[in-house]
Amino acid sequence: MTSQKIISQLVVSNTTKIVLLILDGLGGAPMHPGGPTELETAHTPNLDALAADGICGLHDPIAPGITPGSGPSHLALFGYDPLQHQIGRGVLESLGIGFDLHSDDMAARGNFCTVDENGLIIDRRAGRIPTEKATELIQLLRPITLPDVKVFVEPVKDYRFILVLRGEGLSGPLTETDPQRLGAAPLPVEALSPEAERAAALFNQWVSHARQILADQRPANMVTLRGLDKNPGLPSMEAMYGLRAAAVAGYPMYRGVAKLVGMEVLPTGETIEEEANTLEAYWPDYDFFFVHVKKTDSAGEDGDFEEKVTIIEHVDRTLVPAIVQLKPDVLVVTGDHSTPALLRSHSWHPVPILLHSPYCRADPVKEFSERGCVSGALGRFPATDIMPLAMANALRLAKFGA
Amino acid sequence: MTSQKIISQLVVSNTTKIVLLILDGLGGAPMHPGGPTELETAHTPNLDALAADGICGLHDPIAPGITPGSGPSHLALFGYDPLQHQIGRGVLESLGIGFDLHSDDMAARGNFCTVDENGLIIDRRAGRIPTEKATELIQLLRPITLPDVKVFVEPVKDYRFILVLRGEGLSGPLTETDPQRLGAAPLPVEALSPEAERAAALFNQWVSHARQILADQRPANMVTLRGLDKNPGLPSMEAMYGLRAAAVAGYPMYRGVAKLVGMEVLPTGETIEEEANTLEAYWPDYDFFFVHVKKTDSAGEDGDFEEKVTIIEHVDRTLVPAIVQLKPDVLVVTGDHSTPALLRSHSWHPVPILLHSPYCRADPVKEFSERGCVSGALGRFPATDIMPLAMANALRLAKFGA
Repeated sequence: MTSQKIISQLVVSNTTKIVLLILDGLGGAPMHPGGPTELETAHTPNLDALAADGICGLHDPIAPGITPGSGPSHLALFGYDPLQHQIGRGVLESLGIGFDLHSDDMAARGNFCTVDENGLIIDRRAGRIPTEKATELIQLLRPITLPDVKVFVEPVKDYRFILVLRGEGLSGPLTETDPQRLGAAPLPVEALSPEAERAAALFNQWVSHARQILADQRPANMVTLRGLDKNPGLPSMEAMYGLRAAAVAGYPMYRGVAKLVGMEVLPTGETIEEEANTLEAYWPDYDFFFVHVKKTDSAGEDGDFEEKVTIIEHVDRTLVPAIVQLKPDVLVVTGDHSTPALLRSHSWHPVPILLHSPYCRADPVKEFSERGCVSGALGRFPATDIMPLAMANALRLAKFGA
Repeated sequence: MTSQKIISQLVVSNTTKIVLLILDGLGGAPMHPGGPTELETAHTPNLDALAADGICGLHDPIAPGITPGSGPSHLALFGYDPLQHQIGRGVLESLGIGFDLHSDDMAARGNFCTVDENGLIIDRRAGRIPTEKATELIQLLRPITLPDVKVFVEPVKDYRFILVLRGEGLSGPLTETDPQRLGAAPLPVEALSPEAERAAALFNQWVSHARQILADQRPANMVTLRGLDKNPGLPSMEAMYGLRAAAVAGYPMYRGVAKLVGMEVLPTGETIEEEANTLEAYWPDYDFFFVHVKKTDSAGEDGDFEEKVTIIEHVDRTLVPAIVQLKPDVLVVTGDHSTPALLRSHSWHPVPILLHSPYCRADPVKEFSERGCVSGALGRFPATDIMPLAMANALRLAKFGA
């Protein structure tokens, strides 16, 4: 984080453009010792050409050995210390659906779930009910009122929703209600400080009403709440880097984290082609573009090695050339973390990264892959150094000291 | 140290087992430029096979350029910041011999030495007198009394002993009396803060008595005191990592540092075979085993390149297969620091490390050696990251953030 302490005083303005292309969960692992990862298996001539011309390495999103969630890993990519700024998923999801979150609002991410006759969870995602069904159920929950606060409930996607309380004197930290396993009852919200007790009581009251209202529904007859928190009020990318920054991201979570750091979130779809079109349409208007591809991570989480390979190849064939033809001054391609199909989850493995600009030293990497990046001249470094490196390569940082 | 700030809140419990095999002073150096190190010279097919399947790198025990003592380097291996937790060797040696050190005791490590007629040191280790002789001399020193404190003197091994003062108001920091070179007189203990003055005066009084009592002895006619300090009260490995941790270490110093972090110190001998037997006998009872081999370091300190090679080969032939057949989920093999025969002492060189688990990416390293590890995918990293990496590979850490 050394660069972060001094970077904003070094920022200079110019007309260069930076693209940060994030393939979510890009890093992989071999399915058997010594074997290839997903990225090593994929045929990626365009990424390989960028790697050959550019400079490569591996980054640790949070720290060696730490498996990151998507929120902290994206903050690190944008150059914000993820330990200093811990942000609840409720806030991220609220921003992600475009909800107008006020600075003192408390937001929670809700999941519809299924409980048995004893109130024990038998499906943490209520059979992944579709957004339409969740929206119907939310209509039933909206009439719930609580003393002295306004209550907002909004659908997110599938079985997920947000619950926002607006009023005076709401404060965290609060515990979550999802026990994270089957066969257990949802937990009560607990206040982790005396100031948080009022918010805890209100959230518990709301859950109690929701339980009654949903009792006869199937499969979604209960809810859990996670990531109950406030907007931490981060400095914007413009304040940090002097960049007019925009996000091209189809999924709410990533739109949310981009909004949290003051990016303009551009209208786009969930397909790679829609994202490429959005980028092209808005190309003249911004200095920095965060382009996010979700499906690499989804395939990893599903344990589908082949599907992850296919998506990486799809990105290489379509999105990468679309970006390259726009001639960004600096193009960074990496992931927010690793999601090996082997583990069916996010993991701690460092993430391959390539940086392409006119100012790269040569390194021996000819192929964009985990084992290639081991020999890359960027070495292994923390994700929070990515933005300073991108800014430097865009000639947007002045000399430090005389 | 980033991982350390958050790791204890991420700990999850499972049945995986971790072995941390430490070859003390493992890292070496070539006897002539371009030549092989001790580890590069040794024929180590079993370690090489683990390196080929696993992932390799180099760690800095404290920081680049810093030559570590055994106490701080082991704390770093166990994931404790060695700069934050500076522990006197007196404390370590006391714990190592099973002395019941109270929290306010001041402990010093003593060395018998030889001085000439002018009181100048001519042998810092008194010809390495055997433990039996040292024990006789200690009988002579035990009658020394000091005002208002209890005094304990206990043999450790060879020319080494501990001196413990127990009473109210004892405090450090204190300087050491060993001038660390021949031809100089032992130094007085000096108080580095006003609170430490009483303890300094008492230790000096004791040394003065000891000098008189030993005057006619040969070769051990004087003592020096090092590492005068209190027990710092570290959090246990169980508190930090949720691990039932055990140490298989034949030498007092290493048993001491293991006890300091709450490990169960298992009964064992000083030979590699005894250590292998202990590990096997206690295998079902613990989650984490620290296995310590001392003699690599001793050979390095003696400047005996060939002997160090022989010991590494012995470990490879006997202890490594014994560990592998127990099928640990994670096996880490490294040293606590380098002890090149070339330098006849600990050194600053980074230490080769291999980590073997089912979740390793392939890297180009086929041989466990200093030059092999340069190309390893773990890169070069601080020793305090070893435990987070081992915990991650044992699937004992939950995701950080949503």
